[in-house]
Amino acid sequence: MRNTPDIITFGEVLLRLSPAENRKLTQAKSLDFFFGGTEMNVGASLAVLGESVKHITAVSDDLVGEAALASMRHYGLDVADVQKVAHPMGQYILEVGSGMRSSQIAYNRLNGSFANIQPENIAWDTIFENAQFFHWTGITPAISEAAYQALKAGLVSAKERGLQITADPAYRSNLWQYGRKGQEVLKELVSLSTIFIGGVNEINEILGTSYGLDKDGFIAASKKLIEECPSITQIFDKIRTGMSASWQKIYGRAWVDNTYFETSELEITQVVDRIGTGDAYAAGLIYGLLHFDAEKALNFANAACALKHTILGDVNLVSVAEINEVMQGNTGGRIKR
Amino acid sequence: MRNTPDIITFGEVLLRLSPAENRKLTQAKSLDFFFGGTEMNVGASLAVLGESVKHITAVSDDLVGEAALASMRHYGLDVADVQKVAHPMGQYILEVGSGMRSSQIAYNRLNGSFANIQPENIAWDTIFENAQFFHWTGITPAISEAAYQALKAGLVSAKERGLQITADPAYRSNLWQYGRKGQEVLKELVSLSTIFIGGVNEINEILGTSYGLDKDGFIAASKKLIEECPSITQIFDKIRTGMSASWQKIYGRAWVDNTYFETSELEITQVVDRIGTGDAYAAGLIYGLLHFDAEKALNFANAACALKHTILGDVNLVSVAEINEVMQGNTGGRIKR
Amino acid sequence: MRNTPDIITFGEVLLRLSPAENRKLTQAKSLDFFFGGTEMNVGASLAVLGESVKHITAVSDDLVGEAALASMRHYGLDVADVQKVAHPMGQYILEVGSGMRSSQIAYNRLNGSFANIQPENIAWDTIFENAQFFHWTGITPAISEAAYQALKAGLVSAKERGLQITADPAYRSNLWQYGRKGQEVLKELVSLSTIFIGGVNEINEILGTSYGLDKDGFIAASKKLIEECPSITQIFDKIRTGMSASWQKIYGRAWVDNTYFETSELEITQVVDRIGTGDAYAAGLIYGLLHFDAEKALNFANAACALKHTILGDVNLVSVAEINEVMQGNTGGRIKR
Amino acid sequence: MRNTPDIITFGEVLLRLSPAENRKLTQAKSLDFFFGGTEMNVGASLAVLGESVKHITAVSDDLVGEAALASMRHYGLDVADVQKVAHPMGQYILEVGSGMRSSQIAYNRLNGSFANIQPENIAWDTIFENAQFFHWTGITPAISEAAYQALKAGLVSAKERGLQITADPAYRSNLWQYGRKGQEVLKELVSLSTIFIGGVNEINEILGTSYGLDKDGFIAASKKLIEECPSITQIFDKIRTGMSASWQKIYGRAWVDNTYFETSELEITQVVDRIGTGDAYAAGLIYGLLHFDAEKALNFANAACALKHTILGDVNLVSVAEINEVMQGNTGGRIKR
Amino acid sequence: MRNTPDIITFGEVLLRLSPAENRKLTQAKSLDFFFGGTEMNVGASLAVLGESVKHITAVSDDLVGEAALASMRHYGLDVADVQKVAHPMGQYILEVGSGMRSSQIAYNRLNGSFANIQPENIAWDTIFENAQFFHWTGITPAISEAAYQALKAGLVSAKERGLQITADPAYRSNLWQYGRKGQEVLKELVSLSTIFIGGVNEINEILGTSYGLDKDGFIAASKKLIEECPSITQIFDKIRTGMSASWQKIYGRAWVDNTYFETSELEITQVVDRIGTGDAYAAGLIYGLLHFDAEKALNFANAACALKHTILGDVNLVSVAEINEVMQGNTGGRIKR
Amino acid sequence: MRNTPDIITFGEVLLRLSPAENRKLTQAKSLDFFFGGTEMNVGASLAVLGESVKHITAVSDDLVGEAALASMRHYGLDVADVQKVAHPMGQYILEVGSGMRSSQIAYNRLNGSFANIQPENIAWDTIFENAQFFHWTGITPAISEAAYQALKAGLVSAKERGLQITADPAYRSNLWQYGRKGQEVLKELVSLSTIFIGGVNEINEILGTSYGLDKDGFIAASKKLIEECPSITQIFDKIRTGMSASWQKIYGRAWVDNTYFETSELEITQVVDRIGTGDAYAAGLIYGLLHFDAEKALNFANAACALKHTILGDVNLVSVAEINEVMQGNTGGRIKR
Repeated sequence: MRNTPDIITFGEVLLRLSPAENRKLTQAKSLDFFFGGTEMNVGASLAVLGESVKHITAVSDDLVGEAALASMRHYGLDVADVQKVAHPMGQYILEVGSGMRSSQIAYNRLNGSFANIQPENIAWDTIFENAQFFHWTGITPAISEAAYQALKAGLVSAKERGLQITADPAYRSNLWQYGRKGQEVLKELVSLSTIFIGGVNEINEILGTSYGLDKDGFIAASKKLIEECPSITQIFDKIRTGMSASWQKIYGRAWVDNTYFETSELEITQVVDRIGTGDAYAAGLIYGLLHFDAEKALNFANAACALKHTILGDVNLVSVAEINEVMQGNTGGRIKR
Repeated sequence: MRNTPDIITFGEVLLRLSPAENRKLTQAKSLDFFFGGTEMNVGASLAVLGESVKHITAVSDDLVGEAALASMRHYGLDVADVQKVAHPMGQYILEVGSGMRSSQIAYNRLNGSFANIQPENIAWDTIFENAQFFHWTGITPAISEAAYQALKAGLVSAKERGLQITADPAYRSNLWQYGRKGQEVLKELVSLSTIFIGGVNEINEILGTSYGLDKDGFIAASKKLIEECPSITQIFDKIRTGMSASWQKIYGRAWVDNTYFETSELEITQVVDRIGTGDAYAAGLIYGLLHFDAEKALNFANAACALKHTILGDVNLVSVAEINEVMQGNTGGRIKR
Repeated sequence: MRNTPDIITFGEVLLRLSPAENRKLTQAKSLDFFFGGTEMNVGASLAVLGESVKHITAVSDDLVGEAALASMRHYGLDVADVQKVAHPMGQYILEVGSGMRSSQIAYNRLNGSFANIQPENIAWDTIFENAQFFHWTGITPAISEAAYQALKAGLVSAKERGLQITADPAYRSNLWQYGRKGQEVLKELVSLSTIFIGGVNEINEILGTSYGLDKDGFIAASKKLIEECPSITQIFDKIRTGMSASWQKIYGRAWVDNTYFETSELEITQVVDRIGTGDAYAAGLIYGLLHFDAEKALNFANAACALKHTILGDVNLVSVAEINEVMQGNTGGRIKR
Repeated sequence: MRNTPDIITFGEVLLRLSPAENRKLTQAKSLDFFFGGTEMNVGASLAVLGESVKHITAVSDDLVGEAALASMRHYGLDVADVQKVAHPMGQYILEVGSGMRSSQIAYNRLNGSFANIQPENIAWDTIFENAQFFHWTGITPAISEAAYQALKAGLVSAKERGLQITADPAYRSNLWQYGRKGQEVLKELVSLSTIFIGGVNEINEILGTSYGLDKDGFIAASKKLIEECPSITQIFDKIRTGMSASWQKIYGRAWVDNTYFETSELEITQVVDRIGTGDAYAAGLIYGLLHFDAEKALNFANAACALKHTILGDVNLVSVAEINEVMQGNTGGRIKR
Repeated sequence: MRNTPDIITFGEVLLRLSPAENRKLTQAKSLDFFFGGTEMNVGASLAVLGESVKHITAVSDDLVGEAALASMRHYGLDVADVQKVAHPMGQYILEVGSGMRSSQIAYNRLNGSFANIQPENIAWDTIFENAQFFHWTGITPAISEAAYQALKAGLVSAKERGLQITADPAYRSNLWQYGRKGQEVLKELVSLSTIFIGGVNEINEILGTSYGLDKDGFIAASKKLIEECPSITQIFDKIRTGMSASWQKIYGRAWVDNTYFETSELEITQVVDRIGTGDAYAAGLIYGLLHFDAEKALNFANAACALKHTILGDVNLVSVAEINEVMQGNTGGRIKR
Repeated sequence: MRNTPDIITFGEVLLRLSPAENRKLTQAKSLDFFFGGTEMNVGASLAVLGESVKHITAVSDDLVGEAALASMRHYGLDVADVQKVAHPMGQYILEVGSGMRSSQIAYNRLNGSFANIQPENIAWDTIFENAQFFHWTGITPAISEAAYQALKAGLVSAKERGLQITADPAYRSNLWQYGRKGQEVLKELVSLSTIFIGGVNEINEILGTSYGLDKDGFIAASKKLIEECPSITQIFDKIRTGMSASWQKIYGRAWVDNTYFETSELEITQVVDRIGTGDAYAAGLIYGLLHFDAEKALNFANAACALKHTILGDVNLVSVAEINEVMQGNTGGRIKR
């Protein structure tokens, strides 16, 4: 169906294990599992929306790696350039919260297969041959030197080829254990990107600034980021208000072409799964930027993100038609026969 | 326990398949299943309330048909007049929505066992021997000529015997593929009935009118319907407001004996299953009309419908006692020990 | 880890069976099960919080009793003094309600293993050796003469040793079938206790009074209780407002040292399991009284109780850290990585 | 479908709970459940074979009793004469063995709903109006005086009406706690019966004899039984050899009209469920005696019993066609499309 | 990974639904499901073995079709040429037998999406561009005229291009309802093929002959087939002996280059799933013919088939390494760490 | 119940994850999980048999570690000396084989919590205070230097105190990655032990000899081992013959006091779970040596091992009574009521 992928994503794939029914691990009957990871989630969500997407990663050379590959193919991802290495895949165990009880995660991802990816074996130039978008996040360079080198090489290649490069520079302080400093690396890599998916907190972390979280702060921070990283031309932010683990509100805001715009707020009163909602936002945004103008793209992203809260697992499985319905305000839940 | 059923229902029984946990089919672990169908749901809900009910239908002459029969018996339905035919049972796959995500249904019911029912083998006169109510919906005549003929013969027989005939004339446009026109047929069959379970939309569809949805529109439409179909003496409507797929409000309104009345609104903040809630309303109404006056019947129907939203599956499994509690305003969820 | 338990709990352990997914028993696919009982729940919740707790009970001398012991050990309870008797363990089947549909329970506990406990084989003096707290409820003396005698002997011993004795005098009218009168017995046993966990309803039941449910009524009733049972020095109450079976509000109030205080109200919009929430309150209170002053203890108890609504099963599995978060107002459900 | 049942069965209905996957209760994830009981199993198996059967019992007047009724109806049993009493239903927990590990059962059935059946409220004469067979087992009179009285009244009525009365006089020593002696009662009740389903062990228990288990012993014991209980005219035995809990062999033998005959041996190498296999034999026998001669009936019973080992639950769900296949030697397991 | 598939398979994809634990549908808790179909099973098994395979079919244009596509991608099949049509996908419900109880299937596949495939929209010449093998079975031309026409066009194109064409001419009498005669059509299509996967029964059906089932009959029938359909050069047969549904023996035999050879017999004492074992044999054979000589290919096919009996679902998920182990006689089940 | 444990076990606790129903990971619906590890399995099996056992290990300081502790307590193990360290717990994913398909394991245990145990924080002298047995295996010194040092310190302490020390010197070549050589270390540690649980293969690995596997070889190897490691006084071996992954035979043989003896062979035709069967043998042996003479101990061990094949999970959950039954030859699987 898809010969030359339009979109390339790059990042770790983790095995997520979690008890059903909001159970704690000590009382779990069995563990549900999903393969995911922030960048793969973006890629898979885009594949479900109908885009041609290739995901670059390294999986373990055992039965778990085989299952990860099958899962990626299931979503429609092209896995032809996935490496297999002799280290176990990273994983995490998730206890899903509810109401005022937060979800909790126990990670087991250090020195896993992705951390041991071989940068020299990624043929970025071939991979990017007909691509339009390259997506990365701040998780990847936090994992290992190899992951950092692989990503940087990809960014350099993508920039040369003139791809749109979406950066989601999430800073996760409990990673970054291999020596490099997060702030420095993230600034370097954002400087190689064109679209910034993040807000005031992320800008403050990267630039060491302290802008406020309100609209004025967001605009000022955006201007500063563009000043520091002039390849960045568009900044898309997402504001979440958590009433509880089960009840959330979100809206998007953006600074594009020296203009501010924002979406209306969407309310999710029964959260099925919060993992991957930010990735659904990024995927919606990339889809939107491929097909619409920036403002409609932001609305599409926000609706995609809201709908992801109703989907179990890491990947957003909703269709373009379902997102359009929500963008048109049809949120009353009529049965589609 | 029940020798001569008081209530007769007639219609297709479908195998409903759906993933648990609001999963999409592509990620389902297994499929829950229920046998149901709008008319069977009404009958089974009435049987659970303690009434004696016989359901007339045609099931497949294979292991699926056996399981459908067992399921009907389970609810307490008399299945002595169910036909077995050499066509597979109709079915549908349901993806249960949540929040702003709608439920989606994929049907597989064309040319199934019910479409191939043999009208000449239904002994309506014997079946109606001691019956007081006959219930039908607009789904049945939409399925096949045989289903239409069988229903019409039943209505003629029931009318002769002076039964109360409840018509739920739902118009489903993606059915009606065998040749006849829905509007025409529904008007003909409503003219053979005595109680109309539907509102302005249904009346407009049948009569080709365009009354408004407000109270005045409802009253005007009701008057017009009685003018056109003078055997109809009572009209019961249900107004649903969907905040989301998981959060709904309902109330009932009626036009009986030239009088308008309505119930208070009930709010369901956590919908377990929306399928069959309209059928629970119809069943509650029939129960109410057998035991109470029309206004109390409407309140009973509305409470039954609200409670059905908390029950998984097609059939309302709540008891008369539980409905009474809700009618008395006890909706705070105390544990019954 | 724990050689001499600080806290002793005493009471029946029941096998709880319930269908998942809010199903009715008639449509259940299988039954989830938990071992619990109001006093064991208090003990187990305290063990999960890190306290050393011994539970005294009698289980059946068969495979069910073995499983009950394993379950108690799982939570961290010391089971060294549990008796085994040749009677089946009590049990109940729970249909979990939702929204306006109440949960329903069918009990099977008469003449079970706990009812046949041998009072003479409980070495209370040894058990209490280094203990600080003894917890009992009004369920225990309602079950059988043996249970009453065993409890009374324990209270006498605990009082002599100067333990804090927490009384949760729930009056359950469908128990009390062996001859003694609930009101009389409860008053006798409360008179042997030091901390009363209950409110106006419980005081009215025990004393035969009719105080009002408001704050003034609570204060007056508390004063009267202390007058009648002068060993009682602290009274802790919990006020619940049920919007529905799935949506509840709770706050605590207390009368301690001639002073009234209360907590703010916490709202649980998606109840996972209501069973054991009162026991979580009692456990939180005992933990609080061991570590904090009475007012902070009440806040701790209220937060523990609120969080229990998000935990499946009888026992509160949340940690001290999670309760502290809620006490500090962090109820927005951020993911803990 | 069935107005006047041909076959009447009478006995306790129990709730059977068991972990799946051969798990022990201490490690069970949830409990599967079935309603059954030796006499109900016979009745339900006959209903599945297409016979009209009424089961007489007493269930609890709560949600468990409702589920038991639904389950009986599911199988096709007529439940019009089932009593509801205010005692919990009996139950047992079954750990399913495998290989050399035996299954284990923990009962909880003393003083349950069936033990409290009201003999005076069973209208045996009406129930037997058009019946041909009445089936009872030695479990029933072992449970309570009321159960004994009810059974005896039924036997007297059935004998007067000339029904065939099948006696399966299983002697279970851990029952019989209400005062009467098993041996005495069983002999009395067998004397009111016409067909004995049992072998040398059962005859020795009832008559206090000590015949050997071989063919000669069986013939001698049969002759003695007919001498002592002259209403008995046919004796049908089943010989089981257990290689392990998962691997069993069975064959049937009989003494009818002064003639001995036996079936070939059938081997079940993968037992799915052993509970109810004896009941499947009894049901097969009754079906056979209704439709065939005694020798073919025995073969039918043996094949039905063998097939039951492949069916989960208490009741034999196989069809006449499946039993015929096995009788014809088609045991190779070809797929039926 | 795979740009130009080596192997093309063509045929219907069905939704298979079946209760777990050998349950009958009437007692199923939920239904497991798999997408499969004889030709897709062959293709997917080959993809799991590492081959590049494209499957041609038509799925429904709804949520079920989407799930079918995801499932095919999961196995590694190229789905770029799958059609979507507005008819529901075929399906079947399978009750899995055990021991002497046969599995039973209820089909619902008439007039489904595959029956309505559009032959004119299959670009066979492009599809076969670099292919080496084309696999078909006798199920396909039995479904509809469109399916027959599509297959015939494919065979003509494949033959022109000189592909190896494997024919598995299973004759299923309850299909063939659209007018054409099975025997005639199958002979025509086998005449366009090069490798015959079938034995004496299949040859007799196609040619109207009556050869015996023994070795001599097989050789004579093979000679006759080659005489009648001279494009056929190799004939591979599989002999199954069913001790029971759970215990089977298989071996392969072949007639290649005027030479007979056969494999040793493999015994499967605990069958997990028999569906798709013949397809595993065909897939093993094609893999073998691509990599080995004909005799080793037959051994590989037999071992693959034997191992498939231990795999749930339609598709053989074992690896080349696992098959090699069995070929080397390592069947003792050591754990691979 | 148990104040001073009689038996001390020491080793890693792993999280075992495996699909049910013999599924491959790629098709798993969810993952069952158990905490286990060869030494913990021995300890837990002994606790289930009624012994007082303390297990020494290090778990992760997160929600997984909490669940591991709860699981150990569940079995009755004393966990008072378990360390918590800031490394994830080791784990493995197990695909359960069937028939001729082997089980497969993917490990993720390098640098986990146990590898990072702190030897200096284990108070061996206190732990051994009243102990009689200390059990270790060859897995432990293969994991890390810390694990080796901890074990060696324990062995030295145990030897000084005169405990019986059971050595199960399994050599796992894919471990031993931290620098030390397995053969050398194992010989050193066996020299500190008194009872050797292993056979010819293990002796050959440790001593670099090449004795044959037959009885004579076993006797010769045993003599040589005692010569080289004179603290060893008893050698117990287990001989397994695998017909398939589902069908196994085992018997035990021993060299004790210059005498050879062996048990009869037990056959398990339906293996439920093979993991932990060797540990069940070791546990049975230790139990036997505590209560019986060496020959009866070996029979007890063999029966315990055979029964473990019928139990899901790592730990042998059978009772002394069940083992006695098998020792007495009662392997026909009668139901225990």
